[in-house]
Amino acid sequence: MNQGFVFRKDGFTGAEQELLVNETLFHNANGYFGVRGNFEERYPSDCPTVRGQYVNGFYNFSDMKQPEKHYGFPEQKQTMVNTFDTQTMVLTLEGEQVDLFQGTVLEFSRILDMKKGTTVRRFVWESPKGRQAEICITRMASFQLLPLFTIEYQITPLNFSGTAVMESVHSGDVSNYFNPKDSRVAGEKIIHLRVADLESTEEGFSLIRSETLRSGLDIASVVVHKVYAETGELGCPNGYVRERRIGDKDIVETLTIPVEERKAVTIVKYTVTCDSIRYENVKEAARKWMITSVDKPLNYWYQCQADYLEKFWEKAKIEITGDEELNLSLHYNLYQLLQSVGKDEYCNIGAKGLSGEGYEGHYFWDTEMYIVPFFSLTQPEVARNLLSYRHHILDRARANARVMGYPKGALYPWRTINGDECSGYYPSGSAQYHINGDIAYAVVQYYLITGDWNFIVSKGAEIVMETARMWYDLGNFYQGTFQLHDLTGPDEYSCVVNNNYYTNLTAQHNMAWAAQFYHMLKEQGQLAALEEKIGIEEAEVEGFEEAAEKMLLLYDEKLDINPQDDSFLSKKEWDFNQEKKTNGPIMQWNHLYRLYRYQVCKQADTVLAHMIFEDAQKLSTMKNSFDYYEKRTTHDSSLSRCIFGIVASKLGMKEKAYEYFDFSSKLDILDSQHNTKDGIHTANMGGTYMGIVYGFLGLRVKKRGFFFMPSIPEQWNSYQLRLQLKGSLIEVTVTKDSCRFQLLQGEQITIFVYGREYPAVSELTIALEEW
Amino acid sequence: MNQGFVFRKDGFTGAEQELLVNETLFHNANGYFGVRGNFEERYPSDCPTVRGQYVNGFYNFSDMKQPEKHYGFPEQKQTMVNTFDTQTMVLTLEGEQVDLFQGTVLEFSRILDMKKGTTVRRFVWESPKGRQAEICITRMASFQLLPLFTIEYQITPLNFSGTAVMESVHSGDVSNYFNPKDSRVAGEKIIHLRVADLESTEEGFSLIRSETLRSGLDIASVVVHKVYAETGELGCPNGYVRERRIGDKDIVETLTIPVEERKAVTIVKYTVTCDSIRYENVKEAARKWMITSVDKPLNYWYQCQADYLEKFWEKAKIEITGDEELNLSLHYNLYQLLQSVGKDEYCNIGAKGLSGEGYEGHYFWDTEMYIVPFFSLTQPEVARNLLSYRHHILDRARANARVMGYPKGALYPWRTINGDECSGYYPSGSAQYHINGDIAYAVVQYYLITGDWNFIVSKGAEIVMETARMWYDLGNFYQGTFQLHDLTGPDEYSCVVNNNYYTNLTAQHNMAWAAQFYHMLKEQGQLAALEEKIGIEEAEVEGFEEAAEKMLLLYDEKLDINPQDDSFLSKKEWDFNQEKKTNGPIMQWNHLYRLYRYQVCKQADTVLAHMIFEDAQKLSTMKNSFDYYEKRTTHDSSLSRCIFGIVASKLGMKEKAYEYFDFSSKLDILDSQHNTKDGIHTANMGGTYMGIVYGFLGLRVKKRGFFFMPSIPEQWNSYQLRLQLKGSLIEVTVTKDSCRFQLLQGEQITIFVYGREYPAVSELTIALEEW
Repeated sequence: MNQGFVFRKDGFTGAEQELLVNETLFHNANGYFGVRGNFEERYPSDCPTVRGQYVNGFYNFSDMKQPEKHYGFPEQKQTMVNTFDTQTMVLTLEGEQVDLFQGTVLEFSRILDMKKGTTVRRFVWESPKGRQAEICITRMASFQLLPLFTIEYQITPLNFSGTAVMESVHSGDVSNYFNPKDSRVAGEKIIHLRVADLESTEEGFSLIRSETLRSGLDIASVVVHKVYAETGELGCPNGYVRERRIGDKDIVETLTIPVEERKAVTIVKYTVTCDSIRYENVKEAARKWMITSVDKPLNYWYQCQADYLEKFWEKAKIEITGDEELNLSLHYNLYQLLQSVGKDEYCNIGAKGLSGEGYEGHYFWDTEMYIVPFFSLTQPEVARNLLSYRHHILDRARANARVMGYPKGALYPWRTINGDECSGYYPSGSAQYHINGDIAYAVVQYYLITGDWNFIVSKGAEIVMETARMWYDLGNFYQGTFQLHDLTGPDEYSCVVNNNYYTNLTAQHNMAWAAQFYHMLKEQGQLAALEEKIGIEEAEVEGFEEAAEKMLLLYDEKLDINPQDDSFLSKKEWDFNQEKKTNGPIMQWNHLYRLYRYQVCKQADTVLAHMIFEDAQKLSTMKNSFDYYEKRTTHDSSLSRCIFGIVASKLGMKEKAYEYFDFSSKLDILDSQHNTKDGIHTANMGGTYMGIVYGFLGLRVKKRGFFFMPSIPEQWNSYQLRLQLKGSLIEVTVTKDSCRFQLLQGEQITIFVYGREYPAVSELTIALEEW
Repeated sequence: MNQGFVFRKDGFTGAEQELLVNETLFHNANGYFGVRGNFEERYPSDCPTVRGQYVNGFYNFSDMKQPEKHYGFPEQKQTMVNTFDTQTMVLTLEGEQVDLFQGTVLEFSRILDMKKGTTVRRFVWESPKGRQAEICITRMASFQLLPLFTIEYQITPLNFSGTAVMESVHSGDVSNYFNPKDSRVAGEKIIHLRVADLESTEEGFSLIRSETLRSGLDIASVVVHKVYAETGELGCPNGYVRERRIGDKDIVETLTIPVEERKAVTIVKYTVTCDSIRYENVKEAARKWMITSVDKPLNYWYQCQADYLEKFWEKAKIEITGDEELNLSLHYNLYQLLQSVGKDEYCNIGAKGLSGEGYEGHYFWDTEMYIVPFFSLTQPEVARNLLSYRHHILDRARANARVMGYPKGALYPWRTINGDECSGYYPSGSAQYHINGDIAYAVVQYYLITGDWNFIVSKGAEIVMETARMWYDLGNFYQGTFQLHDLTGPDEYSCVVNNNYYTNLTAQHNMAWAAQFYHMLKEQGQLAALEEKIGIEEAEVEGFEEAAEKMLLLYDEKLDINPQDDSFLSKKEWDFNQEKKTNGPIMQWNHLYRLYRYQVCKQADTVLAHMIFEDAQKLSTMKNSFDYYEKRTTHDSSLSRCIFGIVASKLGMKEKAYEYFDFSSKLDILDSQHNTKDGIHTANMGGTYMGIVYGFLGLRVKKRGFFFMPSIPEQWNSYQLRLQLKGSLIEVTVTKDSCRFQLLQGEQITIFVYGREYPAVSELTIALEEW
């Protein structure tokens, strides 16, 4: 039963917003590259579109002008580059160009099959002159062969025979999307690439190599077409005629093919892309991978894709019964995470994955706090890659720390591709130093989930110690407490504050674990390399321990809540009635510094702290804080609701938990944030996963082990999912009255359910409890 | 004895920095326009220069790109425009071009005569071929006829006769200075003007009209030359030959003049400039004023200039005996204020006056807190003009308040020319809301000093009430106090803080006086107009009174100081030993947000509050605060030391007071801040004046009257100055042991000396007291 794995939209309206959103929703990606789901034949010229193909981690520099120049304010940023256009294919049937905005669309559907790993756009079109044809276009970004993108374009004339002319474009004449009104995409049209070579290779492949104008990178794409009739591959020039025109910036291939009524003709367009971050000679690499690609029939690659996904879903299995919509949404979200996530240490996972240009392809804390949990629990090798990227950019984070005035340690950039800070607005960008704590938290969680000590020895401990050093230098012992000043927590409507509760907790955890790893490495005689590399010393570690112990964690006794920061409670109350909350983020019509003066939150902040450090405060404090902040949160960030949902579960607010989960799960599918056109919200997608595993199932990973608090929403019959805990694959099934843990692979493990310890579990069924 | 009024520098080194600084120090201005003291003949092309002529209040717009677009962040600024070049005059003697960088400079001096109101550059030059000539160039920016600038260029061949060829330039081909490294001047070369007309008028004048590219303004300049031998004016073409070449952007006049050994020939170049802010038809206006100008001999205008200055110095008299250097510096500073200050409501006084392009010609709080006191006490009509400018831009301040989220009232821009905010960096720009309080404070002080109730009725009360409204909307009653959050006080190294002591005091004063004026207007039946215009109501005024009364004014009992803001004392201490304080502002090598995290001040903040509101706290608190903040202040702002000096006087620290005063007084003359090349520091100059009047003489203007605490530095024999108090001209003479107050004009007035009241004083001598 694949029903929960097929995402489908039927019907064609031609509405601009719908087209844009579908470009995102039906994009193809494999973590290495992504192609927006644009129409091969293009839209009418006045119809907005973000037409793009991106490579993860491949960037150009562009100016980020500061209105005033100040020391250390970045004046250059990286931008994920639209690399090539190889998806454009313009079909003309008997002299009439296929165009859904002309003639009549008789049938139309778009399908993403998450077990096949392909998208399909199928339509029946009647031309202005009455010719009817069925077109079925299948696209794939291969997980097996990461540089490979395929378009299988099938044409079936329904009421005529004659000639089909396909003009297939391979173009380097591309630029990034430009909308001067939107701060979340690049603010001005900038040329990023220069076409350096256009050629036909000795094999007859079409090849373009482009160079970035400022970042010193280059990238090559190779395109090959094959044409099939129902009887098999057609030869050229006997079966069809091919013409190639090499222009200044593009290569256009025109395929003239005889077609017969009711007989399908198929054009397969292979694109292989290789960039200079991964390959020394991009032209050679692309050629080589293309030879490999066309050596096998397309079905071979389809099969590889299905095999890859079978393995993926086997580990990532998650099924809800009794709520088909949510079941599908959840699969959609996890599939998008897989499409988006980088597969090597040169890249990570963008806030919008590879599905659009929002946030310019940058990587944020979203990775560690929202996405690493899914991968740590289901595909640890991917999580390890994500964290290895942070180790890969550690030198840049060290350099950043020096600029910011810290003599030792590392400070990770708030948003980046190559490791350098790209945040142009410090208060809700670079000031979010908690990214250091977040990365350390993710390293520790990854270690606690997987037990991968080897990663800690080789990379993790270094990350955790270098980040800890920054906290220690930053903070101040004052009146018996260790304080952190002038930083911004997750809530971007309260910036540059003192003793943000979330920040102080993550910093405390960071320093405590730096000390912990130090002692563990020392005990095991594995400290020498790190001592030599970063000069870590006992006295420093004692400092970490003291600072962690004395960390100021704000608590208001009267309200029994944790104040978000030291002045939050003294701020004015926001008038939620006056603000039309439905019209998008309030920052779009309020000066940011006005918002900072109010008790209004963009997103979960203290509530997020309560989720990840549930033992740092009393349950009553969590409950009161939840109520307090929920009333004051706009959820203008897509990172907010999923967290509120998880903590609602923890607090036994089942209906609320479900509502938050429901909203988060469908956020992109329903375009609830009104910006899915710019790309998917990968953090929210990871948050959806956490909504089940940390929310309904109540998992918390602590030093002592794995803690579960299973529950189930009223709306569901059951849900089942698989987790990889310290190498063991566990299947958990929660029904309306019980929770069953079953070991599928690996050694028996100890778990805690409702606070009770169950050692060496291989199978365990427990009745659900209410609280 | 004019000695204290002649500022002179002898000798020519050709050193770049010296040339640049002297361009500033010897600039000519009259409040309407300013001309940098560039060499008429130019420097060698590789020698940096800021060659400019500026008109006060005349601006173009330019982009101020934000790295991220956010609601209400200004993306356009005004820039004071370099208008024309009419100072360029290239002299060739017998085929050898006069050039101080060639041949030999035998004598060289530059002189500013502050009673004549002219600058002179005089030199004796020997050409590479041995020709010697004495050149004496006198320049004047006429106070009598504001559009008029004159250059009197006298040539005396010392050892030859022959031909002098003067190529005199009238050019619209000008641009502003561009140094990409300096945040205090514009960051990129931008063309601001387009030459629209070049012509010879019917009178034979050379005329150029230019239009700003974006601000919709235009400006005309008219140039006329006259040539004189010792025997009188020379005719053309009999006495000399004139050729005019009209180019695309400039008009060059070549004067070929026979010269005789030891006989002086003089070329007088008149420039008249008129802009469209003041004149409807700028060409006609400039022509008309030129007709007026050339109708009189130059000596007539020189005499007008001297008369004007005689009146100025009569009121502004200030003499120190026993310290010639300081006496001269002080005169220099006051003269610069007169040169810089706008003479109509369309303009104000720039941070750099009209002497350079630093801060792009913008007006800041410098006006109200540092410069208005001098004018209020000596030339009240100028002070009234400065404050009328604030009334003139009140509608812009209202619009700004709306953008910032305030439904009522006005918020003045931190830096502006036309009234719109030009601050590109909010934390140490727009966040300095205290500018509202500063303007209200200056209005009240002006009223208390002059008794000009009419100004309050027509403009002042409206300003004070509209600014008060902003505070009331901004603040928050919390736990019995009225609090002001997320604002920046004067100290730009502690930004966006809560309850900054200075800000809260000025806001308190602002709201209290809004209520006060309301009651006074009501009592006198003069409220109706204002009620109608701004809808001020009794209930609102009661709100002001309550907020003022409950204003939170931070006090630390243990230290007996006023904390600068609510978190200042909990911040880290700055390591002054580690920082090389002599190399310029620490912000040049520290990230600003790092500085915010330390107890380090750029300038006087709480100490300034203590100066202007000395009754708001105990004397011990002032003393302890002074000591506390002095240790933590870098004085990286030129607005700092003068204030520390004044409060040092108040606290009886005579030596310290003298040192601060001495440093401030000579700041530009000695280029102590290393940036006088960008222009003079007008605020500091006003601060110097306050250093005597508020410092040594101890004047405080309060609701109850004029309070004096006379003292004299050890280094001086005596000092004497004049003050205009409620229309009465008072001369105050302080010797080593006494202080004499003498009424020169007007009615007897009541004063307080050392806290004791002396009613109806016409003459009063009091022995100096120590404290």
